Amino acid sequence: MLSPLRAATPAAWVAEAVRRWPELLADHANCEKKAASTALALMFAYPEDRALATRLSKLAREELRHFEQVDKLMQERGVDYLRRKPGRYAAGLRAAMRTHEPFRKLDLLLCGALIEARSCERFRLLGELSAGQGLPTPVADLYVGLQASEARHFELYLKLAESHARREPAAVREQPWQQRLEELAAVEADLVTSPDPEFHFHSGLPS
Amino acid sequence: MLSPLRAATPAAWVAEAVRRWPELLADHANCEKKAASTALALMFAYPEDRALATRLSKLAREELRHFEQVDKLMQERGVDYLRRKPGRYAAGLRAAMRTHEPFRKLDLLLCGALIEARSCERFRLLGELSAGQGLPTPVADLYVGLQASEARHFELYLKLAESHARREPAAVREQPWQQRLEELAAVEADLVTSPDPEFHFHSGLPS
Repeated sequence: MLSPLRAATPAAWVAEAVRRWPELLADHANCEKKAASTALALMFAYPEDRALATRLSKLAREELRHFEQVDKLMQERGVDYLRRKPGRYAAGLRAAMRTHEPFRKLDLLLCGALIEARSCERFRLLGELSAGQGLPTPVADLYVGLQASEARHFELYLKLAESHARREPAAVREQPWQQRLEELAAVEADLVTSPDPEFHFHSGLPS
Repeated sequence: MLSPLRAATPAAWVAEAVRRWPELLADHANCEKKAASTALALMFAYPEDRALATRLSKLAREELRHFEQVDKLMQERGVDYLRRKPGRYAAGLRAAMRTHEPFRKLDLLLCGALIEARSCERFRLLGELSAGQGLPTPVADLYVGLQASEARHFELYLKLAESHARREPAAVREQPWQQRLEELAAVEADLVTSPDPEFHFHSGLPS
């Protein structure tokens, strides 16, 4: 399945991530926890969607396993946890989402796909850095390992969005779901390429 | 480790559960989801407690796996999902909990232990029913299988409570944690033995 992303992560973000890898890890650990809780929130919001529940339960388990992997590496490298407010990325996407059904569910699933696709792209960029480019080997190895499952995650969210659109024609009466994905992908692309005062796993251009 | 429970489940609840096993399964599926989300909520509330995060992440994964097992059995037996307000059990325990730290964390962990211990006891009672006592064999088998992990869960919550008490002497200055456990266990025992107008996995005496 093709990535739904409409902009590449700026090289400057990768350079910043290498320089600030302990913060990267700590923020990434929070993202994995958050990804699990987002999946659970969808399971609670749509209990009648049994296929969604089964698949997102498995996804949440995988995110929690990643959390444990990142946390273990943090402990091995002496990296402390980080309690920080969510960055502008999540807030920016949330602001673009519609709040009434059946559009709300579609937007939640499409944004889920975009977030997972961005994580996947950044894992790939971090994993591709060759030795000597600054990221400690175990950290680069972690990102190589995580990439494949994160790709499956954005595919899953897209499939759930597609199946929601099929079963709820009202959700796509005015606009096909692919077109709505393009709109949200444009918002997402702007968030990761425009100057961002903070550094996060999903932050924009370091400013 | 000894069970912290102070009252046995009334035989009338077991009889009701056998009679209403489809509802039992549906409510149980919700309990597994809720148990995972409670564990995650603790991970978000206390990110500085790294041991808690690692252990509760594993516990949440196990609860989600149980959710998937129960959901699979429901689908095999044609049992529909159930969207229902939380019963009086959770509300009753929440009302007994203190809301300021470091007591809040202690009470959350002790109540976590009590809820897991009660689930474990009810799994055992349901698993012990011999064939012909009304529970379909695959349902009884499920409960036999779940019992062991649920026992590990209440032990884990008790260990986390003990370790919190050790590191936060203020939490136990006025009262040892074991004594607080007794108080909460008395509330819990009352909730499962007093007449309850509704039937839930954690409901009281059928009335």
